[in-house]
Amino acid sequence: MVGKSNSVRINSLPGVRRLPFYLNILRRMRNGQPKIISAVALAEEAGQAVSVVKKDIEMTGAVGKTGVGYEVAALIGGIEKFLGWTEPCDAFLLGVGNLGSALLGYGGFRRYGLRFVASFDVDQSKVGSFVHGVEVFPPAKIAELARKLGAKTGVLTVPAEHAQESARIFVDSGMTRIWSFAPIPLTVPDGVIVQREDLTAGLAELMVRCRNAGRGS
Amino acid sequence: MVGKSNSVRINSLPGVRRLPFYLNILRRMRNGQPKIISAVALAEEAGQAVSVVKKDIEMTGAVGKTGVGYEVAALIGGIEKFLGWTEPCDAFLLGVGNLGSALLGYGGFRRYGLRFVASFDVDQSKVGSFVHGVEVFPPAKIAELARKLGAKTGVLTVPAEHAQESARIFVDSGMTRIWSFAPIPLTVPDGVIVQREDLTAGLAELMVRCRNAGRGS
Repeated sequence: MVGKSNSVRINSLPGVRRLPFYLNILRRMRNGQPKIISAVALAEEAGQAVSVVKKDIEMTGAVGKTGVGYEVAALIGGIEKFLGWTEPCDAFLLGVGNLGSALLGYGGFRRYGLRFVASFDVDQSKVGSFVHGVEVFPPAKIAELARKLGAKTGVLTVPAEHAQESARIFVDSGMTRIWSFAPIPLTVPDGVIVQREDLTAGLAELMVRCRNAGRGS
Repeated sequence: MVGKSNSVRINSLPGVRRLPFYLNILRRMRNGQPKIISAVALAEEAGQAVSVVKKDIEMTGAVGKTGVGYEVAALIGGIEKFLGWTEPCDAFLLGVGNLGSALLGYGGFRRYGLRFVASFDVDQSKVGSFVHGVEVFPPAKIAELARKLGAKTGVLTVPAEHAQESARIFVDSGMTRIWSFAPIPLTVPDGVIVQREDLTAGLAELMVRCRNAGRGS
């Protein structure tokens, strides 16, 4: 029961989720012109209301100049700092299947400070191999390596039926942040944060939006 | 500018996104006891407020019995029907890299009605091969196959710099729903729906939640 064991409440998590998208837009601008972007222009690019964009950026503490806009480089830096993406975060990944392998190879994460330093799988044939440059270890090594490498973040890409047990292993190894791609609730002790990612959530949204638009016709 | 070209507005998209999670919880219950679940019990399992769960379910049209709860099988059916997951949806995937391959092999999608009928990649060495049972074709074949197979849904897993051009190919081929994993805005004509999935959004949320909780310690 994630929601029960974690009492963390943040007002604008949807806003936090939009920040990487703004970052991508801004980073693509950085190399070219302009050096300044207005909230209106950024909102237009992002397909969001201006008021939403302003509020999201306000949350990061970045400030623009009235009647002018935000300095692109400063805004990038402000958002990155707010997201904690200026310091690298070392992570473990458990479950080197299709999705796990894809995440290990996803260049975007490294750009955002997430660095996979070890991966784990019960499949003995995978142990000892390197997937996108990350070595695969047996799960029995998690505690030892977590101590050695100081990793606090664990990414879970195991099948749903193994997710709870896997989360327990991460927690027992001293890890305090779990990013779970298993579409089930996980029970963790207080102080451990579980972020659940559900790829089918986007599919649900797409289907309902299409139906509301007359099946996309 | 996704938000500009699509005038679709749905009140509770976050609610829609939570429905697959409820479904997973309910499906795991289906084979065992109980046959009835109260909103309170489902809310507890899902780590959500009872009022949120009730509202989300109300949106699907499923009704429970006062003081008793929802019949599990009926609730599953009601949510699936609302999400349009009772009829299979045939989809194309463009960009058979790490993420694309993982999505082609993700069993969850088929369970939710999404069936990949063809995939496409510019890499000639991949053309003609099968990835998780799905044949890889050259992008030049998209229009012909879309006509032949009647596919209206396209999943985009190409690098950001090719995303806009790829979206244009989908649109020119008569496809009306695009599920894009490229972290940039896409410009599409009216009537085409773009659902953007950003894996780094979850990472942003995790980082900020951890910091708010004192870096997860």
